[in-house]
Order: sequence, then structure tokens, then C-alpha cells
Amino acid sequence: MTKKAENKNPNKKNQNSSSHIVSKLIFISAALIGLLSFYIYNIITIPPEVPQFDLNQWWGPYPIDLNRDLSIRPFTIEFTDVIINDLRERLLHRREFTPPLEDAGFTYGFNSNFLTQVLDYWQNKYNFKDREQFLNRYNHFKTNIQGLDIHFVHVKPQVSNHIHVIPLLMLHGWPGSFREFYEMIVKLARPHPSYNFVFELIIPSLPGFGYSEAPVRPGFGPAEMAVVIRNLMRRIGHERYYVHGGDAGHIVGSVMATLFQDEVLGFHTNMPVLMYHPLATAYTLLGSIWPSLIVEKELESRLYPLSQHFQRHLEESGYIHIQATKPDTIGAALTDSPTGLAAYILEKFSTWTNYEYKKAADGKLLMKYSLTHLLDNVMIYWATNSITTSMRLYSEACSKRNLALKLDQIPTNVPTWGIKFKHELIFQPDSLLRLKYKNYLHSTIVEDGGHFAALEMPDLLADDVFEAVDTFMEFHSGKKAEQERNLPKDETAKNIYEFTALNVYGKNVKLDEYKGHVLVIVDASNQRSIANSDYEQLNELLYKYGNSKGLRILLFPSQHNVYINLYNFSVKNHVEFDIFQKVETNGENAHPLWKFLKQKKTTSGDFSKCIVDSKGVPIEWFSGNLDPLDLDGFLDGYFNSDIEDY
Amino acid sequence: MTKKAENKNPNKKNQNSSSHIVSKLIFISAALIGLLSFYIYNIITIPPEVPQFDLNQWWGPYPIDLNRDLSIRPFTIEFTDVIINDLRERLLHRREFTPPLEDAGFTYGFNSNFLTQVLDYWQNKYNFKDREQFLNRYNHFKTNIQGLDIHFVHVKPQVSNHIHVIPLLMLHGWPGSFREFYEMIVKLARPHPSYNFVFELIIPSLPGFGYSEAPVRPGFGPAEMAVVIRNLMRRIGHERYYVHGGDAGHIVGSVMATLFQDEVLGFHTNMPVLMYHPLATAYTLLGSIWPSLIVEKELESRLYPLSQHFQRHLEESGYIHIQATKPDTIGAALTDSPTGLAAYILEKFSTWTNYEYKKAADGKLLMKYSLTHLLDNVMIYWATNSITTSMRLYSEACSKRNLALKLDQIPTNVPTWGIKFKHELIFQPDSLLRLKYKNYLHSTIVEDGGHFAALEMPDLLADDVFEAVDTFMEFHSGKKAEQERNLPKDETAKNIYEFTALNVYGKNVKLDEYKGHVLVIVDASNQRSIANSDYEQLNELLYKYGNSKGLRILLFPSQHNVYINLYNFSVKNHVEFDIFQKVETNGENAHPLWKFLKQKKTTSGDFSKCIVDSKGVPIEWFSGNLDPLDLDGFLDGYFNSDIEDY
Repeated sequence: MTKKAENKNPNKKNQNSSSHIVSKLIFISAALIGLLSFYIYNIITIPPEVPQFDLNQWWGPYPIDLNRDLSIRPFTIEFTDVIINDLRERLLHRREFTPPLEDAGFTYGFNSNFLTQVLDYWQNKYNFKDREQFLNRYNHFKTNIQGLDIHFVHVKPQVSNHIHVIPLLMLHGWPGSFREFYEMIVKLARPHPSYNFVFELIIPSLPGFGYSEAPVRPGFGPAEMAVVIRNLMRRIGHERYYVHGGDAGHIVGSVMATLFQDEVLGFHTNMPVLMYHPLATAYTLLGSIWPSLIVEKELESRLYPLSQHFQRHLEESGYIHIQATKPDTIGAALTDSPTGLAAYILEKFSTWTNYEYKKAADGKLLMKYSLTHLLDNVMIYWATNSITTSMRLYSEACSKRNLALKLDQIPTNVPTWGIKFKHELIFQPDSLLRLKYKNYLHSTIVEDGGHFAALEMPDLLADDVFEAVDTFMEFHSGKKAEQERNLPKDETAKNIYEFTALNVYGKNVKLDEYKGHVLVIVDASNQRSIANSDYEQLNELLYKYGNSKGLRILLFPSQHNVYINLYNFSVKNHVEFDIFQKVETNGENAHPLWKFLKQKKTTSGDFSKCIVDSKGVPIEWFSGNLDPLDLDGFLDGYFNSDIEDY
Repeated sequence: MTKKAENKNPNKKNQNSSSHIVSKLIFISAALIGLLSFYIYNIITIPPEVPQFDLNQWWGPYPIDLNRDLSIRPFTIEFTDVIINDLRERLLHRREFTPPLEDAGFTYGFNSNFLTQVLDYWQNKYNFKDREQFLNRYNHFKTNIQGLDIHFVHVKPQVSNHIHVIPLLMLHGWPGSFREFYEMIVKLARPHPSYNFVFELIIPSLPGFGYSEAPVRPGFGPAEMAVVIRNLMRRIGHERYYVHGGDAGHIVGSVMATLFQDEVLGFHTNMPVLMYHPLATAYTLLGSIWPSLIVEKELESRLYPLSQHFQRHLEESGYIHIQATKPDTIGAALTDSPTGLAAYILEKFSTWTNYEYKKAADGKLLMKYSLTHLLDNVMIYWATNSITTSMRLYSEACSKRNLALKLDQIPTNVPTWGIKFKHELIFQPDSLLRLKYKNYLHSTIVEDGGHFAALEMPDLLADDVFEAVDTFMEFHSGKKAEQERNLPKDETAKNIYEFTALNVYGKNVKLDEYKGHVLVIVDASNQRSIANSDYEQLNELLYKYGNSKGLRILLFPSQHNVYINLYNFSVKNHVEFDIFQKVETNGENAHPLWKFLKQKKTTSGDFSKCIVDSKGVPIEWFSGNLDPLDLDGFLDGYFNSDIEDY
């Protein structure tokens, strides 16, 4: 009967006769779609504006604690006996597993036969006290940023004078932790035979991961995380630094390189991808017909056939889907069961290291890692009970609000360097990465290795970081020489329009956007804390002259002032004046703008103010003792009758 | 600064000037795509062939136990002290939860504050012994089907003679159980004022769910499950019956109504949807432009705007994604932690009852259900440790193998009736359902209720089942009258080509497909068990004359023979002869074919054989004592020299 069935499709003939017309139609449609795409292209290639964030947004519980400790406190990891005994009890009394299906390996998830081995090891052989000591071999700290206690490992190498020490921020991913980088630290913080620098390493636990506190309210996505980490770097004392990241660490690092282009000196990533970039997606689809358009011949198989890679991605992205929608539900289970937590985390270390490993009964988990190292990482999630809050990052990253920021579509000039391991989950050609990373300098291609490169190939990855940062520095010195040739000289400038300054949202503002406006520029960079009444008076002044006469008020407060007073003020009032970031206003290191402003300065002191006329020339200085509202009497003569109704 | 930014898009003008061309291009593309669709339409509207399944496939561990107990054994649910104490211990020692985000309700999954209440109740107030008694109030049984012990509730109403007792198979979903139907049983198994029938209820635990064993190897999807349930019904003694299902029960019921169209008398579903039907999807997309094409005005909002419903579906389908790819990983956690299990299961009872409930801190879980009833269901998963195997159904249903069967695209003539609750997860208009259900008789529209209708609105659902089955019976009596007018009369038939018979795969075979072939038809329906040597000889005969002379051998074995011998034989050999399902071959109730065959019968006894010539006329009968190979001498004269090389 089977034989006969094969010859029994009466419709085959019809299909053949119509296929010619179909292919014609497909061709014409494709051509038209091509044209249409060109127009869409024009629209989608206009980059979105850089969103502006409140750099001091509060993520702890209300009310804001104005007197909280902002110091950096030493911290020690502890696997207490309470934690250990409770964990061992749970492992001992774990419930009988459902046996795996015959020959299923890891294809239905973590194989429960092998899970037994992992848990027995954890229960009986994992040396908690040894591992605690191991984790504490580097210095740990905590400090409160925006209401959250943020944990970080800080490795400051002691080297001779001729070796430069370069700050490097290292960002882990999910389901990883600061522990991922331990094998790399040795390599990065010691002099390298080929380079004259080493790294000072700052390795935080991302907020909500491990020993860093989690936000208490919705809305804390990768961008908000980037702001916290950036503020952590400032707290430690770094305003310029390099960043390395993979997985979630890539995403947060990429956002930092987007929002803080003047602060991040270079971005090294071992998961170089644009997560959400319609044009990149369109190119990728187009490439399935014409691969050489976007990808080098020798890397083609990492991306095409698209259907095969898409199928794998679909197979491996269930965790994203559930973490993006129901992190708390699955979190309830993983919080309560070390068995579940180990299976959930370690499954990734098998399949993401090499997709083919899922065919093996043990997921070849021990092929590249030791159980001790893997369980160190699981322990960090277990001891801190942070799996739920770590998973919430996916909810926030996939929220409409976050996607609408289109962060991946905003170009960055930060020099960027990717390393592409063979078995990484997603591959993206350099041509697409350059849509965002305008100074994408290089991709290192590795014909081995997977998603957890820091743990799997620490030496190779560390070497790549050295090479990348060396290249970044070269890039900057070339850039600097070029810039110096074109920089405005503060002494020779005619007006303020030639200068630029960072505003409070991290945006570099060219002051020519104030052309034609009378300005009051306030030096609030000194010790005196600005009182709310000062803000109120400034706002009142603007209320009177802003719309009617085009007055603008530019405020350069100290970090501390921004940090507390301004936050409280702005939550209650609509702030109309323009706030800039802290700069030096005096002496050798003064910001060029301030050097220029003070050339003809006649008064000084805290909260001194300068009126700049509508041609950009600073005319009059007033002391800090003059109430802002008293400027009213002086301003009148500056307003040009041509400018009305702003 | 913000004000200015608004006026700063230099590309706006370009966009406007090109929009006219864009809209033209869109129009032309749409027209061409329309034409293309027409051709694709022709291709995708050709229904796939009904796949053929081994109705006796073995799903237990090997080797097959030939002497196993095939009886129906009474069964009692037990919540033993061991189970209860272990569970209470785990609930007592549950780990501290991660607090929910501020005002998050159930939007990040099960709210952990409310989870505390649920678990406290389970631990301290849920009366295990009472509930055990409650669950045992109906008769439970187990019986072994294809190597799996299948559990079912069996309710046989005792009613007076004038009330008909109609068999109804009730299929639960995920994460439900037989418990879902308890509130409906009372209503369905007692005489209804409006109808002259009641239901005999067969309520199985789906294989891998609750008290039914799970298969031990991959490949057990909805179709394989349908075969097991169908065989269960036969074991109980029902060859014709009605089916009700929702959720996974809908899917399995729908497959039964597809594969066993002569056995399922009617299909009632409270989740009437086609899961995987490209044409239905195409129509649904088309309907977003032109809704009235596919959906009634008053139901439009249940489907459109599509983006909104799609968004919700995406939000609610993370569990499908992870269960379809990594059921064993998440299973490890849910097996080990009653906290996790309760959160995972009960989250669905909140959000799937009404999407809006997720805004509430308690998910309004107690608005429609009592905790006791909800926990009955959770207890069934917990006590049987069946969550992992239940979730594997999603892996099998989403496997390439299962999707390639295109079961939803195969039409069925089984009369079908849907009830559509307002908050059901997916809505599909009748017009699309009719693509598959050729006799889709009616949709009941309910302006309330959600996914768990049996538990939420048992009375309304039970009434609907009564009405549906009443309509099904009317449908059949009309159909039967019509059929009787057109049936071939066995006495007057000229050859066997006018008859049909069900083959072993459940397919209705019209015998005219044997036209021109010489046939040996074997009556193996009697008591004597067929020996392997008989099969071997039949196969040998075919080997000699099958390809060269076009000989076909048709075997009508008894159920028992098929069940054991044939299975063993076919796993070792490639069976070339055509096997049919058990039929009566003698007497009043004999199958029409057999009445016709035996009109001129000259010999009888077990394993008797008849040669039918190449014109379909039965010529010679041979006794069971004649070895099949001895037919060789008789066959030669029948072969027509025109037919060669089959």
C-alpha cells in the first residue's frame, strides 16, 4: 500500500504548469519591493536622537535617603554555615527526577541522569570554604549608587613607573557573574611582554545580579543599568575608561558606548551584535540571496543558511521569552530549588559552548569546564538569591519603553573591537556592526570557542583585550593630533559659540545653538551647596524673559549639587534652565569655555554669574551674593528687540 | 533645549516628498502580491494526506512484555503520609522570595507576596485527606495500552431504560487534569430536563499527565496520544463515542476526529482553533484590512486589532517556547519545589481566566476559583511528579515531525461544535474553523469566562455539551437515512470493488484501488492465533508474485493477533501485505465485504483464504489447514499476462 501512495498526488500537474507564472510574479514583486525598500531605507537610516536620562534617578525604596553612606566600603564574600547547611539539606532531599527520554541527551533540556552527578558533586565534593577563599582572593567593595548598593571587584596592579595602568570595566552576562573573569584577571593585571601597560580592573556585579542590589520598581533596563555603572566608575574616580563585555555585558557596554561617548575610550566585546536594528535585519535577509553583499566568504556559514541558524536560535531562546514575560514565576521555582537553579544555569554552559554538545548524555559539560568552576558561578546566584532579579533584566530589555529608545540604532564614535568565537549564539558581519559602531576597528575571528569565552578561553580573550586597547590608544593619539590642529584657542576665540560642553544628560552641546540669545551663565561648581531658593529665582527669571526675550540660563553645578538638591527640585518643578556637567571653572585645568569667560572677569566667588550678550560675548560678572532675581535690573539693556516670542 | 530639539529634523522634508511615490509602490506591490497569493492559495488549499500510524506502537520500556496484564484494574488515589509530610516540610522550609517590583501585580509573573498566602494555605489549611476522598468519589481505573498504564475516571450513570446512555470522552488540558471536570460530572451524568439521554463519562489522565504513565522515548506527540486514547476507548468497549476537549484536550480530540472519523461521533471543544494552518493565518492577516471577510461584526474585537492580540499572545506564550525546547530543564526545578510548581501552574489560572487580572496584586485568582479547588489540581501534578512529562507534550507537538503531519490541515467530517468564551487565549472565526471541520455545526458565544471553562463555568459548559450532542445525533440520523438510500447491497454487488474497509492505520480503503490485481484475502479473525510462520509464508508468496504478477494479500486479523504477533513480526521484517482492522466475518453482523465474499463459500475454518481474480470476483476458498505457501500451485492460472512489473 505504501508503494501506491507515492504515486497518488493528482494535483502535481497543476502545480507544475503554474510555477512559471509564479516565478515571474515573484520576480516583479521582488523588484518592486526592492524599490520600496530603497525609500524605507532612507527613512530607517535616519538615526534616532540620543535619549536623555536622569543620571541620578533613584532606584532604591522611597523615601530617598539623603544622608546615606556614599563611601566605598570593603566587602567580603561569605558562604556561611547557614547557607551551606541549608543548601546541602536541599540537595540531599531533592525529589526524584523524571528520567530522561531514551537517547535524548540534552535535547529536551538538562539530562536528569547527569544532573544527579552534578548535584552529588555540589553536595559532597564542592569545597565551600575553599571556594569562598578563592573568590575573596581579589578585593571586593560595595558602594551606593542611586539608591542601590553596587558590588564590584577592584584589582589595582602594582607596577613600576614605566608601565601605564589603564582602567578597564569588565561587564559579565546572564547567567554569569564577576566570577567569569577570574581566570582572565591574572593575565590582564600583570605586565604583558608585548605592551607597556596593564589594566586596573573594575568588575561589578550588574545591578540585580550576585552581590549588587536590584531596583525596587519597574523600568530598570540596560540603559538605566548603564547609567548606574557609569556612575560607579565616577565614584571610583574614573571619568575615562575602557569597557569589555559579553552577553548582557555586551548590551550594557554598548549602551555606555552610546550614551557616554566622551567617557568610554574603547569598547571590546565578545558578542558583537546589534540586537534590534531593522536595517541590519533587512540586510541579513537580503544576504540570504546574495551573501557576499554583507559577509566574507569564509564566515558565510556562521550566518547562512538563515533558516538553519534561525531554527537554532528559536530552539535556544525559550529562556528569553519566559524571562522577558514571567521572570517572577520561574524565579519562584529557581529561588527555592538548587536543583532547578543548577539545571537552569548549567544547561546554558553546555549548549551555548557548542550546539552539538546537546546530543551527548552529559552535554559534554566537563569538556571545557570543571564542575568546581561552574558551581562557583551557580553559588553566586544561590547565595545571593538573585536569579529572579537577574532574569527581570530581560523583561526590561524587551519592554516597549526600552525598545522605543532604539539604542542599537544610535551611532557611536567610540572605537569598538569584536572577537567572534565560532559557536557564539549570534553572528553578525562587520558590515552590519558598522551601522552603529562608526569606528569598528577590527574583528578577531576564532575558529573555536563559544558563548562563555572568559571561562572557556581566558588567555586568548585576555590577549585580544590587550591588542584591542593598544589599538584604541593608537586611534586616540591619531585623533588627538588631528583635533589639536583644529581646536579653538580659548585665548583667541571671539565668542562662546566656538565651545562645547557636556550637559547633564551626557550630550555634548555645541554652544552655537544659543546664537542670538542673551545668556546668564552660572558658576555653581564651588563648595557652597545651591539652595532651592536659588533654583526658584532662576526659574522665575526664565519665566519672565525666557519666552518673551529669549533669555537662556546655563548652570554648571558641582556633582554633589546635581546629585541631591537638583534631583529633589526637579521632581517637584519643571526645570527650564539648561544644566551642564561639573567642570573645572578656575586655574590651569579649567574648561576652555571657562578660561574664555574669565578672561575679563571682574568679580568672583561662589555662585558668581556672567551675562553673555546676544552675540556670544561675556560682558558683566556678578558676585554669588547677588540674588539671581536681582539680575532683572541689569538684563534689560541686553535684549535685542528683533528677537521675540521664543 | 527640549523645545529646540523638536524643530531639528532636517530630513522631514525628504520624507514628505517621497511619500507619494511610496504609496504608489505599495499599491502596485499589494496588487502583485494579491495575484501571487492566488497561486499560493491553490497550492496550500490541497489538503495533505491522512498520515498512517501504527495503532499498536509500543511506548513502554523494551523488551515488550507479551504477558502483561491487559485488564482494567480499579485504582484509588492516595495522598500518603509520606507525600503529605514531605510536601509540608518543603513548604515550611521554602526559601525567602524575591519581593515583587512596586505595583507590578502579576505583570512580571506570579506575585510573590500573594504566593506566600497560597503556600501558607496549602501547608496549613488544605485538607489532604478530605481532598483525597473527594477525588475518589468517582471510580478510577488503570489499564495498559501500548505499554503505558493509562488512568481514567469512569462514571456510568444508573438510569431508567428510556434514558439513553451516551459515551463521552473528556480530555483535559495543560496545566489541568481530570480534576477540571469534577464540577461538570454531576451535571452530565444525571438526566437533564431537556434531553432523553445522559453521559457515560470516560475522563483519562492524558499519557504523561497525573496518574497515566509517560512514554519512555521521543516521538509521542498529539497524534500518538490520540491513538492511545482511542485504544483506551476500545479497551473499555467503545468503538463509537463523542469527545469533549479544551486546550491540549482540544488538540488531541481534534486529532482523534481527524484520524478516526468513523469512530468519533462528534467533537465538542471549548478552544476551537486551528493551531497550524497557513491558509487560516493568511485569512487572519487579510482580515486585519477587511475584517467582515472572515469575522462577524460583534466578534471582531476578539481578533482585531491583530497587533494587540498578537502582543498578548507573545506575552503569554513564553511557557510554550520553553516547554517546547527545554521541558526537562524547567522540569527539574518544578519537580523539586512545590513553591515553583504552584506559581507556575496557578499563574495560568489568573491570567488565562482574564488578561486584565494580571494588574491585580493577587491576580484575582480567588475571584472565580477557591484555593482548595486550584490546589487539587496542583496536588495531582505534585503527587505524581508528572510536570516534566506533561510539559514534554509541547516538545513533541512542536517537533518538525509532528508539524509535517499538518494534522490541522486535514479536513474531517466529524460534526464539530465550539464554545467560545470571551477571555479564551485564542479566538478563531467559524469561517476559518470550517477549513478543517467540514461539519462545523455551531459556535456558542459566551460574553464571559476564560480558558479554564470546566472549572470556571461548569454548568454552562455542561449544558452546551448536552445541546451539542443532541445536535450531533440529529445530524447522524439525517446522514444515516441518506446513506441507507445509497449503500451498495452486498447481495447484488458484482465484485469487491464496491466495498470499503478500515485498514490497520485507521484509513478507510475503497477496494477499487485493487482493480486489476489478483488478491488473496485471509480471514484471520477467529480464535486461532496466527503463528509467525504464517506471516513468513504470506510474505514469501508476495515476494514471489507481488512485483512480478501484481499479487496482493489482504489480511483481516483479530484485534489480539494484531496486537501482539504482528507487532513483533513487523519490527523484524518489512511487511508487504495489507492489514485491515478486525471485522465480523460471519453471520448477521458480518462486514458487507465478507457477506459478499462468503456468498459462494465452499470451505471454512480458521485462517481460511479466498482467491479473488483480477476482476474482483471471489473464486476459490481454501481451508485454514492449507499452508499459505501451498497457494502457489493454485494462483498461477489467475495471473493475467497483461499485468507485469508492479
